[in-house]
Amino acid sequence: MPKKIKKIVVIGGGIGSSVVLSGLKKFPLDLNVILTMFDSGGSSGKLRKELGVMPGGDVRQCLVALANKSNLTKFLHYRFEKGTLKGHSLGNLLIAGIEKMAGNLETAIDIIGKILNIEGKIIPVVLENSEIKALLNNKKLITGEENIINCQYLSKVGIKKLFLEPQVKANPKAILAIKNADLIVIAPGKFYTSILPNFLVKGVKESLRNSKAKKIFICSLMTQTGNTDNFSVQDFLNTLEKHLGKNVIDYVIFNTGMLPPHLLKKVKKVFPKGDFVKYNKILLKNKNFIGADVIDRNIRKLNPADILVKGANKRTLILHEPNKLAKIILKLSK
Amino acid sequence: MPKKIKKIVVIGGGIGSSVVLSGLKKFPLDLNVILTMFDSGGSSGKLRKELGVMPGGDVRQCLVALANKSNLTKFLHYRFEKGTLKGHSLGNLLIAGIEKMAGNLETAIDIIGKILNIEGKIIPVVLENSEIKALLNNKKLITGEENIINCQYLSKVGIKKLFLEPQVKANPKAILAIKNADLIVIAPGKFYTSILPNFLVKGVKESLRNSKAKKIFICSLMTQTGNTDNFSVQDFLNTLEKHLGKNVIDYVIFNTGMLPPHLLKKVKKVFPKGDFVKYNKILLKNKNFIGADVIDRNIRKLNPADILVKGANKRTLILHEPNKLAKIILKLSK
Repeated sequence: MPKKIKKIVVIGGGIGSSVVLSGLKKFPLDLNVILTMFDSGGSSGKLRKELGVMPGGDVRQCLVALANKSNLTKFLHYRFEKGTLKGHSLGNLLIAGIEKMAGNLETAIDIIGKILNIEGKIIPVVLENSEIKALLNNKKLITGEENIINCQYLSKVGIKKLFLEPQVKANPKAILAIKNADLIVIAPGKFYTSILPNFLVKGVKESLRNSKAKKIFICSLMTQTGNTDNFSVQDFLNTLEKHLGKNVIDYVIFNTGMLPPHLLKKVKKVFPKGDFVKYNKILLKNKNFIGADVIDRNIRKLNPADILVKGANKRTLILHEPNKLAKIILKLSK
Repeated sequence: MPKKIKKIVVIGGGIGSSVVLSGLKKFPLDLNVILTMFDSGGSSGKLRKELGVMPGGDVRQCLVALANKSNLTKFLHYRFEKGTLKGHSLGNLLIAGIEKMAGNLETAIDIIGKILNIEGKIIPVVLENSEIKALLNNKKLITGEENIINCQYLSKVGIKKLFLEPQVKANPKAILAIKNADLIVIAPGKFYTSILPNFLVKGVKESLRNSKAKKIFICSLMTQTGNTDNFSVQDFLNTLEKHLGKNVIDYVIFNTGMLPPHLLKKVKKVFPKGDFVKYNKILLKNKNFIGADVIDRNIRKLNPADILVKGANKRTLILHEPNKLAKIILKLSK
């Protein structure tokens, strides 16, 4: 009898999810990714504001990660370098145009997905526009992904409540995917703006809690200045559990590796206050906390044409190593 | 023995060529289209100016005309309706982005052509940027496609010399296609800016003259205000022969049909001074002049988002009927 193919659901934003997917893609798995839909900055945010489309940048990242042998793939990340198009990626424009004409993002994903011959499903967590809002402990209200990322005192003041406005309901396909999952992976990513917002969507948290799938949280490699300064692995988990409830996450994968000084210097140049996420060594004795060197030493090159991303919302320079992550995830799935 | 498939080369601009191709495409033919590359206005012209790409609009028209069963096809003509992208067609952006990243237009055509599963070859007449210039009889010099189209006194003053600057040489693939052709069709289109410029390219005229293929000229349906006012079929042919030489064109297809008053009214509203191209009835007795009702009664709808096209450079409202053209062309090819 053939072994049943495992259904894996990755939940997160664009880059972190695409890293997780690109590792898992090499194995015979049923891959599904549920993506945040609240970007207000960058090329996606600009298209969203100007055209009223859903933010497509994270979709593009995952389309490329899941693509198989298509000549088009590498061109989707191309960013225009001049003129009125400067900073827009070709893939974002393609997604936006098809969404406008077809009337919905899912058709755009379907059409481009077929062209790229993607393996797996890309599921927007919601199908309507909504904004992330952060009510801080000092009663200040920060509105929109871009402003939250750029808020330099978020971790200092603390968030009283993170919410969506309007309070949108989940894409039914997201709920179904969670329900049918054997394994759910919460990808690394910008914590307050790419990860947690997925669980603010009506229905997602509840179906996650009810799901019998094993649930893995992949902790970010670095803290995000202004948002998660000084956060330890345990801080990330505690904040996640504030949203999901206790005993929902089964495993936490966190990084124990370090960068050699010459690479660290490069990262510090772009993120002077960013730091590696610390962990209490006692966690290494707990079988539910998987500490491992999961850093990709291929430091990401920033694209000078990537100018629509403002302020602290810089692209991360260091990413998880996809194959190392996949290996750990598959081991936990057994 | 299987019959040899006829090699047909269409030469022209975007819309006219795409009409000819969409009719011919239904028959087992080896289709090639050589396209003008000098647009300076519209979405193509804007992308050309801002990014330094070749004008891609005509390529898009022909990609769509030659496409076979692709979900993407209908989205290529989508025009953004708002914001900084307003007036750009999705296909033009796709062509421009791939061209920028790959470094040449031919790769973009190849990649999108494969996605659309196109039948036939699209050949840019040149691979470098160049401008059309018109030196008028009053010594005034008009530079660029957009300015020539919008010049309201071109036909009144008369053109002393139409030329390209820089004087670019032909794409070798264009020369080869002409050399190997069994039949060459000069498509209808904007005469001074989409049709004649192809023959100003170094090498094109010469290879056309040397070619043993039958050569058909499809005369435009209507005159173009400021450019070809009062032009008759014979005037179009005479001007073409001034560039190509006498006895190069074997057949002229021209229209003898008329529009019913309610459609004529619609056309006159957009082109008050435009007129149907007149013909001397004596031509009907000449077997090299094929007069026929070749008007498509499905009047084209203008797209309100098509705002980058300026002044007199309006989209034509009436087009040739593709199947009628194809039938005549195939008959002449025997």
